[in-house]
Amino acid sequence: MSRSVTLEAVDGVEACCSPLTGGILADAAAEQLAGVFKAMADPARVKLLSLIAASEGGEACVCDLTAPLGLSQPTVSHHMKLLVGAGLIEREQRGKWAYYRVNDDTLDRLARAVAPG
Amino acid sequence: MSRSVTLEAVDGVEACCSPLTGGILADAAAEQLAGVFKAMADPARVKLLSLIAASEGGEACVCDLTAPLGLSQPTVSHHMKLLVGAGLIEREQRGKWAYYRVNDDTLDRLARAVAPG
Repeated sequence: MSRSVTLEAVDGVEACCSPLTGGILADAAAEQLAGVFKAMADPARVKLLSLIAASEGGEACVCDLTAPLGLSQPTVSHHMKLLVGAGLIEREQRGKWAYYRVNDDTLDRLARAVAPG
Repeated sequence: MSRSVTLEAVDGVEACCSPLTGGILADAAAEQLAGVFKAMADPARVKLLSLIAASEGGEACVCDLTAPLGLSQPTVSHHMKLLVGAGLIEREQRGKWAYYRVNDDTLDRLARAVAPG
């Protein structure tokens, strides 16, 4: 299940990352870019991204993330679902726990899309 | 008035642009970064940014922006206020009209903050 979510998300991000200031964006490109920004438009999700990136080996499970944010596991899982859906985070199930890492490729595309033309 | 709004916004952006994946973000930095993403988390505002950047001389007045988006002037003005507040757009009043241009410095800071560490 996590795999299909990730693939959809990557498709979305590929389509979305037209440069913001490289010409008038088509409606679909503007919607997809806005969708990725929406996933990052919450302080808890921004902090989750920075926490995962700073974790040992660049990966973390939900069990590592609840205490630093002072949030419940269901709340963290909800935020993670939105980040995975936007292609910003990759999820891998290993036994009981799901492990998350930042999708550097998406961040790189997004940075290039935002950079002034 | 537009000047004080712009200055506040630039302060916010300066504080916010800690790298997303360069260490665990403090709460205040995460909030400010999320605030900038929130301003971009709407397809109409993403499209406004691209329209202004693509305008002749890199600037546009509200009168240039209503028709391409099919939105009323009050609605466009509302979106512009949020973009100016986030430091993404600069506003200059000249006579009857306000003119807007993209703040390349903010986009550059944001792109560097988003780029993988």
